[in-house]
Amino acid sequence: MEIPTGQDEKFMRVALNEAREALNRGEVPIGAVIVAPSGTIIGRGYNLVETLTDATAHAEMQAITAASSALGGKYLTDCTLYVTVEPCTMCAGAMAWSQLGRLVYGATDPKRGYSRHGRQLLHPRTGVTAGIMEEECGGLVSDFFKKLRA
Amino acid sequence: MEIPTGQDEKFMRVALNEAREALNRGEVPIGAVIVAPSGTIIGRGYNLVETLTDATAHAEMQAITAASSALGGKYLTDCTLYVTVEPCTMCAGAMAWSQLGRLVYGATDPKRGYSRHGRQLLHPRTGVTAGIMEEECGGLVSDFFKKLRA
Repeated sequence: MEIPTGQDEKFMRVALNEAREALNRGEVPIGAVIVAPSGTIIGRGYNLVETLTDATAHAEMQAITAASSALGGKYLTDCTLYVTVEPCTMCAGAMAWSQLGRLVYGATDPKRGYSRHGRQLLHPRTGVTAGIMEEECGGLVSDFFKKLRA
Repeated sequence: MEIPTGQDEKFMRVALNEAREALNRGEVPIGAVIVAPSGTIIGRGYNLVETLTDATAHAEMQAITAASSALGGKYLTDCTLYVTVEPCTMCAGAMAWSQLGRLVYGATDPKRGYSRHGRQLLHPRTGVTAGIMEEECGGLVSDFFKKLRA
């Protein structure tokens, strides 16, 4: 099935809204959505690590769990995951297990991002697009840490 | 704080019991427990990927979430995680975020195990012991797949 690529900014805006929900709770502002080939959003999530006191509660993990539940199946082969910041190795591993069709992220994360360890942490068939709304996505996180340290 | 290492077989047996719970549900039989320095088990989990139709529902993920909830904190700095099979990259990433003190696993997983990608997927301070009750841990999984393919 062909995965549409023409609405990346539209869906990244939805992921940014999820990130703002995290911000409202005092969490590192990262958000994610998963979109079916029809263009329907089937999963959403934002970082809840502090709220749930659970280091695994990243935006992408919640979105993957939600999307799998919505589909009634563990594979997201034809789906696109939008996330405001480059996924970490844990989330990349989750994407590999769910055989994600396409990953679109905003800001890069040179310190914690999966790509530092190489592309092979993802499933070989997962397409990747980076840098969509990069400034807005990255700015949200850097502003958060600037205020935290102020 | 000193992390005790003298009871690895005892706790691996508990992880094996968790793995058998997975087997009873028709899941790939992998189990995990997390032990505090006092020797108290503060988290347990077994593979529930098929039951929950969720590719992220690995034994280790559930044990980490349970232990963090029991401790009321996201860091497992002084804790030991026992798991019957070498963790995948997702679970290794989760252990890195929770700054796990010590990882003990039974059977190696040359195909999906994190160590294929290098030790740096774990936190630099996480101690690792491999091969505890390796045959029993690995046998449970290989028997499962043999029966599945028969």
